[in-house]
Amino acid sequence: MDPLIFENGTLMVLDQTRLPAEVSYIEIHNHTHMAEAIRNLSIRGAPAIGAGAAYGIALGAKMIKEPDMAAFLEELDGVIKAITATRPTAQNLFRAAARMRQCAEQVGSPVLAKEALISEAKRIHREQYDQDMAISLHGLDVIPAGAAVLTHCNTGSLATAGYGTALGAIKLAHRHGKAVRVLATETRPLLQGARLTALELGEAGIPFELIADSAAGHYMARGKISLVITGADRIALNGDTANKIGTYTLAVLAGVHGLPFYIAAPLTTFDPAAATGNNIVIEERNTDEITFFNGVPSAPPNTPALNPAFDITPARLITAFITEQGLLRPGEICRIITRSA
Amino acid sequence: MDPLIFENGTLMVLDQTRLPAEVSYIEIHNHTHMAEAIRNLSIRGAPAIGAGAAYGIALGAKMIKEPDMAAFLEELDGVIKAITATRPTAQNLFRAAARMRQCAEQVGSPVLAKEALISEAKRIHREQYDQDMAISLHGLDVIPAGAAVLTHCNTGSLATAGYGTALGAIKLAHRHGKAVRVLATETRPLLQGARLTALELGEAGIPFELIADSAAGHYMARGKISLVITGADRIALNGDTANKIGTYTLAVLAGVHGLPFYIAAPLTTFDPAAATGNNIVIEERNTDEITFFNGVPSAPPNTPALNPAFDITPARLITAFITEQGLLRPGEICRIITRSA
Repeated sequence: MDPLIFENGTLMVLDQTRLPAEVSYIEIHNHTHMAEAIRNLSIRGAPAIGAGAAYGIALGAKMIKEPDMAAFLEELDGVIKAITATRPTAQNLFRAAARMRQCAEQVGSPVLAKEALISEAKRIHREQYDQDMAISLHGLDVIPAGAAVLTHCNTGSLATAGYGTALGAIKLAHRHGKAVRVLATETRPLLQGARLTALELGEAGIPFELIADSAAGHYMARGKISLVITGADRIALNGDTANKIGTYTLAVLAGVHGLPFYIAAPLTTFDPAAATGNNIVIEERNTDEITFFNGVPSAPPNTPALNPAFDITPARLITAFITEQGLLRPGEICRIITRSA
Repeated sequence: MDPLIFENGTLMVLDQTRLPAEVSYIEIHNHTHMAEAIRNLSIRGAPAIGAGAAYGIALGAKMIKEPDMAAFLEELDGVIKAITATRPTAQNLFRAAARMRQCAEQVGSPVLAKEALISEAKRIHREQYDQDMAISLHGLDVIPAGAAVLTHCNTGSLATAGYGTALGAIKLAHRHGKAVRVLATETRPLLQGARLTALELGEAGIPFELIADSAAGHYMARGKISLVITGADRIALNGDTANKIGTYTLAVLAGVHGLPFYIAAPLTTFDPAAATGNNIVIEERNTDEITFFNGVPSAPPNTPALNPAFDITPARLITAFITEQGLLRPGEICRIITRSA
């Protein structure tokens, strides 16, 4: 089940909002369609959003009629803006958009740019798999044989359009015969753990159990968890990390119980413009996600709610970042990121 | 909306599983009906379960045909067993059952016992309101004016068949003009916060917002919470407290953020037979509560899950217990409980 398929010039996005009940793909013809797919979470997970955004920009560029390069780039900026205005936190979205912009600048005409952008989007998509495999291989170093791994939200193939980050490392540990077990949080409000991670763990044949988000502490207190690995949506230069709401709580709990807490993410998730977590914008989503479930109200009419999609885990609670270049301690980020950014 | 109505010999239980969509009452004719209502959470909340159990035992006793007192008591034990076999954690259930048994012993004949048991059940129900008001008054001492109170699960009238414990204190603070605000956790898996606490807060006109359980840490980190108050299902003599799954996590978070963490509960919630939390049985409920929502699957078919209904918060994380006899520190429980038990 690939979240993103580009074949014969046609882009298909798996509608993840309908999983696990239904496997259906949406045909994406232009950047407006892609912006909508990102906004409504048909495609989600910071790395997958990055790859999807790249394709969206390439499709948007194809529709620009301007023969003049300067005017073309101006219109391209409008396309990029439409794509990046969808979700404020996922760093990979902005990195992919910047890379696409740079790609267009480097060729001499709109005709060439349109071709180059399609190739660049494919390259971003393909690179994700290689990055994920590198991350997963480094993840093997921190997952002991027989470990019980707690993970949050979904960070598998569905989230990256590659092999997965945190879940990639877990899958690879399983393939390497490490006899891992997983506790997966359901991840309210949109249940990416229940709907998507459970699907991917089941397909991979990894022993696991789904739990309510609020049960993680209980199992840590009972010694049932060896370590925690999650993904990230944006990482500041000091190591403060934005990830799915609830990640901060898991990091606090891991710290209190003396458990290692890892963030697995490609270097594109690091934000060279964010010195600390204070520089990261947290997306507030529609509160219907809290007060309705599958269209059925789960609270009285007009119940006021708050729905932050992410929280910030301070660097001091993070044992290390598992990246494609190996394990990084928070203090090592600056050196690596200013180099590669 | 009273969770328990006894009028003209007829017992009605509000079916809380259908709230907030539907206000419907179930007629309870005997202890089997009541056991079923407790098991399926039509009536829930440790104190309300206690009062409901008392009525259930009284109704069960009415149906015993034995004219001989010893034989009557033997059959009564069967009734009590059916009622207490429903939920293992709520201490108030066992305390109410023991009190009903004692009541029956103290009269000379089954005819008198049947009448005495009805009166005793009514007394247990009525006392709950007085206890709750006393708890709520003591709660005023720990809720500062303008406080932002985080609460978990439902601990209002619906949970106690009285005025409420943690939510009682919050309601009374509001009535006393303390300008409190509430953050209410939705409380997965059965959403007692979203379905019931939101209903009670709305009816009381208290400003509040509903959040995912996993967002509590986020708001603590941002300084948006002044203190935490929850109820309890059973409290050991050393102060270790069983309450709705997720309570332990909130207590850890409160500790890390330097926030007071209170448990509001009547003395009937304290278990003189439990030295520590290790002596408290945690109910494991059907995992369909995790993998289905309103009958609709929220996870792939046959997803394995774990569904502990409660967790244990160690005494060291609890600032104080708010009881009808005032604030108790964990170290003071033994003196009070051995005296009143």
